[in-house]
Amino acid sequence: MSSLSNATTFETVSVWCVLIIAFLGLGYALLLRSQVLKFDKGTQQMQEIWSSIKGGADAYLRRQLKTILPLIAILTVLLFFSVYIVPPSDEAVERFSNLSEDKIKLVIGFARAIAFIMGAGFSLIVGQFGMRMAVEGNVRVSSASRRSFGEALRIAYRTGTITGMLTDGLGLLGGTVIFIALGVAAPDALLGFGFGGTLLALFMRVGGGIYTKAADVGADLVGKVEAGIPEDDPRNAAVIADLVGDNVGDCAGMAADIFESYEVTIVSGLILGLSLYAATGQLKWIIFPLLVRGIGVFSSIIGTYLVRDSKKGNALTSINKGFYTSAAISLGSFALLAAFYMNEWRAFLSVAVGILLAVALDEVTKHFTDTKHRPVKDIASASKSGSATLILRGIAEGYESAVWQTLVIAVTIMSSILIYWGQGVSFVLYGVAMTGIGMLTLTGNNVAMDSFGPIADNANGIAELSGLDKDSRKVLDSLDATGNTTKAITKGVAIGSAVIAAVSLFGSFLTDVTKIQLGMGASETLFDTGIRISSPIVFVGMLIGACIPWLFSSLIINAVTRAASLIVNEVRRQFKIPGLLEGKVKPDYQNAVDICTIAAQRELLPLAVISVVAPLIVGILLGVEALGGLLGGVIVSGQLLAVFMATSGGAWDNAKKTIEDGAHGGKGSDCHKAAVVGDTVGDPLKDTAGPALNPMIKVINLVSLLAAPILIQYKSTDTGMIVTLTICAALIIGAILYSKKGGFRKAKQTKSL
Amino acid sequence: MSSLSNATTFETVSVWCVLIIAFLGLGYALLLRSQVLKFDKGTQQMQEIWSSIKGGADAYLRRQLKTILPLIAILTVLLFFSVYIVPPSDEAVERFSNLSEDKIKLVIGFARAIAFIMGAGFSLIVGQFGMRMAVEGNVRVSSASRRSFGEALRIAYRTGTITGMLTDGLGLLGGTVIFIALGVAAPDALLGFGFGGTLLALFMRVGGGIYTKAADVGADLVGKVEAGIPEDDPRNAAVIADLVGDNVGDCAGMAADIFESYEVTIVSGLILGLSLYAATGQLKWIIFPLLVRGIGVFSSIIGTYLVRDSKKGNALTSINKGFYTSAAISLGSFALLAAFYMNEWRAFLSVAVGILLAVALDEVTKHFTDTKHRPVKDIASASKSGSATLILRGIAEGYESAVWQTLVIAVTIMSSILIYWGQGVSFVLYGVAMTGIGMLTLTGNNVAMDSFGPIADNANGIAELSGLDKDSRKVLDSLDATGNTTKAITKGVAIGSAVIAAVSLFGSFLTDVTKIQLGMGASETLFDTGIRISSPIVFVGMLIGACIPWLFSSLIINAVTRAASLIVNEVRRQFKIPGLLEGKVKPDYQNAVDICTIAAQRELLPLAVISVVAPLIVGILLGVEALGGLLGGVIVSGQLLAVFMATSGGAWDNAKKTIEDGAHGGKGSDCHKAAVVGDTVGDPLKDTAGPALNPMIKVINLVSLLAAPILIQYKSTDTGMIVTLTICAALIIGAILYSKKGGFRKAKQTKSL
Repeated sequence: MSSLSNATTFETVSVWCVLIIAFLGLGYALLLRSQVLKFDKGTQQMQEIWSSIKGGADAYLRRQLKTILPLIAILTVLLFFSVYIVPPSDEAVERFSNLSEDKIKLVIGFARAIAFIMGAGFSLIVGQFGMRMAVEGNVRVSSASRRSFGEALRIAYRTGTITGMLTDGLGLLGGTVIFIALGVAAPDALLGFGFGGTLLALFMRVGGGIYTKAADVGADLVGKVEAGIPEDDPRNAAVIADLVGDNVGDCAGMAADIFESYEVTIVSGLILGLSLYAATGQLKWIIFPLLVRGIGVFSSIIGTYLVRDSKKGNALTSINKGFYTSAAISLGSFALLAAFYMNEWRAFLSVAVGILLAVALDEVTKHFTDTKHRPVKDIASASKSGSATLILRGIAEGYESAVWQTLVIAVTIMSSILIYWGQGVSFVLYGVAMTGIGMLTLTGNNVAMDSFGPIADNANGIAELSGLDKDSRKVLDSLDATGNTTKAITKGVAIGSAVIAAVSLFGSFLTDVTKIQLGMGASETLFDTGIRISSPIVFVGMLIGACIPWLFSSLIINAVTRAASLIVNEVRRQFKIPGLLEGKVKPDYQNAVDICTIAAQRELLPLAVISVVAPLIVGILLGVEALGGLLGGVIVSGQLLAVFMATSGGAWDNAKKTIEDGAHGGKGSDCHKAAVVGDTVGDPLKDTAGPALNPMIKVINLVSLLAAPILIQYKSTDTGMIVTLTICAALIIGAILYSKKGGFRKAKQTKSL
Repeated sequence: MSSLSNATTFETVSVWCVLIIAFLGLGYALLLRSQVLKFDKGTQQMQEIWSSIKGGADAYLRRQLKTILPLIAILTVLLFFSVYIVPPSDEAVERFSNLSEDKIKLVIGFARAIAFIMGAGFSLIVGQFGMRMAVEGNVRVSSASRRSFGEALRIAYRTGTITGMLTDGLGLLGGTVIFIALGVAAPDALLGFGFGGTLLALFMRVGGGIYTKAADVGADLVGKVEAGIPEDDPRNAAVIADLVGDNVGDCAGMAADIFESYEVTIVSGLILGLSLYAATGQLKWIIFPLLVRGIGVFSSIIGTYLVRDSKKGNALTSINKGFYTSAAISLGSFALLAAFYMNEWRAFLSVAVGILLAVALDEVTKHFTDTKHRPVKDIASASKSGSATLILRGIAEGYESAVWQTLVIAVTIMSSILIYWGQGVSFVLYGVAMTGIGMLTLTGNNVAMDSFGPIADNANGIAELSGLDKDSRKVLDSLDATGNTTKAITKGVAIGSAVIAAVSLFGSFLTDVTKIQLGMGASETLFDTGIRISSPIVFVGMLIGACIPWLFSSLIINAVTRAASLIVNEVRRQFKIPGLLEGKVKPDYQNAVDICTIAAQRELLPLAVISVVAPLIVGILLGVEALGGLLGGVIVSGQLLAVFMATSGGAWDNAKKTIEDGAHGGKGSDCHKAAVVGDTVGDPLKDTAGPALNPMIKVINLVSLLAAPILIQYKSTDTGMIVTLTICAALIIGAILYSKKGGFRKAKQTKSL
């Protein structure tokens, strides 16, 4: 660790160990891959269906790359040249004091650009590679279900673990490499790293979310509701798109989302740790989060490997065993770290609070969305007076769950205040960042559990389409049900960690702006004044910030309904083909896949523009303090709205399942019809709009952090700023119009809903 | 004006003139009453139906009084004795410098208590008297419809104007009397006045909202959906409860709500004006808002009187003529005031911005809820793929409208910043308060327009039940449609003014806390530090604050569905009575009325407890700055949520109307069925949960203002505070449990939904 002169041998060695653990995680992922690929892909018919899914997935991934790569290229160049507007930090100058000023600029410019590419690239790899593996896994799970439950479970979980270990390994690798290379100058590049990952996650979340729900809602509306054929019926032209969608949304989207939270917490942890290092001279505040992460990855490797053949029907027990093993190893190691390295317990407590937080959020999520508890039962029972009361009940429960989840977050921040009582804001913010790191300790296990969901779901779909026997179906049904539970748990962690990550970014914003202001010789910094919502202009910023998640959600929901209507038309068109409904003619699955792919990519751009440009406009027009208000507004309103949508959607889904399992008349009853309406309303809320808010909140925070130096240096009277502002405003208006018209190119086609 | 020594003769005379105008307004209301009562009540059958409605309304009002009066009594006593904890302000001591310290306490104690009674009492009068008049008016409108359109319109509008002038007159009277009596000591009592009005408005809004929607949803679910009989069919036992509900919700609830905004804007205007007076020595900052209000009332009297017989079918034109006349008189007079009294234009500009704001909010509301514009058309068209897509579309439009409405508020605050550029926060806050006053200038006209709605609606209901001829029905249908439009317009103004009023209260909080801190010799006041959301504890306060509107809405929606299920059971029970469905036996209307009345009152208490106790807990535990954060959170999240619910609900309602008017297959089609589901979902959102947030936000602000002196004086370590805290926490938990169980007493009965 050439970059930090005062590191002890233990510190130097252990940071290198963390790097080795990162590679270990990646090696473990490759090992699992080769294990999974050895299994057979089943009958001819299964392989045929599978190749349709694979074709659809590949098409989506290719198109996604084509849309995103040019943008990454442009942003990379911009970030490189940004050093000529935002000069390297004092720390960077100190770190490379042996170089000339021009050379330092070049080095830092490269560092920013490469870090951005790393962030974006890693996020892409997690999403794309993970999804490809999920597609490889599903048919093998399906095939294994004909032999034994244990084998099917093992393949499904191991395939999921590949994505999990990629998330872990790449997240750890990026942060550690940047830290080793740059030392105290790391924040300069870390922001680029975070921004790259978050932006890509936003793309994959939004694109995946629109794709999956357009296919799902579209297929259901014509298939189940209009034509009265079952789910996953091969006559439905959208059935393959639906299966592809599960991978695109739940696998690629979710993995990229969690990867980004994982990344952002380490970014803000390091930035806040560095500010403590600057204040106290103690290196341990920076080393600690890296070690915690390393330990987490290591224990995930062990824990996930323990999930193997179990007694039939006990998938969840086996998965949980792995999870608790990992948790125990982590907590024990953290305690050792606290006792023998940190020589104090506060940082340990923060991390432990993070683990508790994950558990608490999980419990709240379960209470409101699990079929065993009152809320879902009440919602199901409200179906007796029709879909309207069922929906109202779901809305009320969703509202309430948003309250409890937010209060849990409030208690978490409160405990950070208590842990660092009397130590000042910097310590408290550091504590919040450590809570985030604690919460995501077992990301490997979490992502494995989550990816397990769509793999089992797809395996079941392949079994249905290829007519597997009853015994195999039973195995797969059981795995599928387990998958639904694990997906719900991960979703809770994803939202909670997103908010905690956003709060630590908010803290980084404060620290960073202050540093810049001090560097410019300002007499009063943002740290002194704070972000005062009692100042009218900051209040205005907060109002604007609070609006963004609502605007974003509105545009996304419309995008889904629009895309779904295209699918509806397509399936209707194909139903009219003679012989298709009789099963004599195969529908054209590819066309439905194409429609979803195009629709999902088309809607991405305006949403990304809003997230990137809105903070710039507010920052330029109203100043950095108002921008701070905006960040506060985005976090608070985004959190409540995201949880509401995720919970209501999940609860409606499970209310429907409760009825399908026999309550209130069972399948086909009036109650069931009411519940299907609720589920359809909930689908885009829980799988598209809600989850998309996670990366969106963080993109806004990171853009603000990146732009802060420019905003502080230039006044709003500056001509350059006025030009920038006009361009920004034009971009936003263009984006909203574009989005509302469903993309100008395809405006006509979308009129049909 | 004995209280202000440096008032000019013009100022003294004009304040007394304002008082006279207040009495003029009240006299005008009495005049209109005697005019309306002279008209006949129609046939025997009409009078029979009417007396059922009147009976139901009376029962509700009596029961409401019985629930509320004890609480008012307790709070009055508390406020009187509060002087022994929160001593009179320095201004009060100065004002009554001729009295001994003990006597000053006595006087101020009385002032607080009486002001509270005045606020609560006036609010009650507006609600109760206005509703009684509406009930008197409806049958007379029904009867007049048999003669001429012009006569029916005149009666309906005049009856509405009675409520409007009561709101105007009493609001103006209270503020002016307190100001004349106490002068610079007025804030001591003004807060009590505001609190009384707001608390009562909360009760009437929530109670009325639950009543009206329980009856409406309940009646529709069994009548229209299950039994397939038309709306307002006399065989439906809930039909009278439904008609009573229109008065309870739209008339009493809305009038009390607007009265309270009217009152609170003058309260915060005077408090902020007094702080400017203290800073500049210029009395004009206090006199100006009073004069503006006086002029507004005067021009409302003239404008509303101009609404009379018009050409058939042109009700809205006639009403608008009156509105624009009032607006023109007001604006002209304000300009004169600015030129010859204020000798500057800034305050005038603020008031003008308020009027523009009302217009802008109105336009946004219309765009999203009017049948003529794209959003409602799109929602109606989404019914083609079923109720799920219709609901999703409505949610998306509601989200978006919340964004635009909030941005309009942001622009308003921004313009206040620009108008008072370089003048400091106090002036900007004063400007925001003046904007609120400007917005509510024409409250007389607005409330008249709003009350017109339920009167026309009820008149139509009476006509349906008593089988009036086609021509009369045509007249009433036209009036009813106009009423729907005017109601929607007022709703937009009500929400917007609530937020502006809350923002000025938030400003008063800052000013007031600072004054107390200065009085106690604090070295650093809240005005110096500001409310810094960058401080973790304030951020926690903001998170908690942002939760409250969501919790509140969740509890209210559940309360409505619970009460509606009771009505469903009751109507079902009565349908089984032999002969009832054949029309041979009359149903027992009274029972349905009783169920609604009891349910509405039962659910009030927990909601009131949450609004009152939550700010106290945060204030005690986390301090005044965190309490400031809470207020910011409540305003921001409450505004977005309230607009979303109001707009989505309104849009679904009108989407249904669009289809009923013949689009997409018209009445009875599948599209219509889908739209009915949307409308039923929207009903409790737009008429109960959404509007209830207005007074709730302000109750929280006022409680914080009232409690601030206590919170500053006592530390959280104090035993007394711990006791208070425990009681508060127990109250909140009790309230949530009570509310979730639907009241302990009736817990069993409510299991049935």
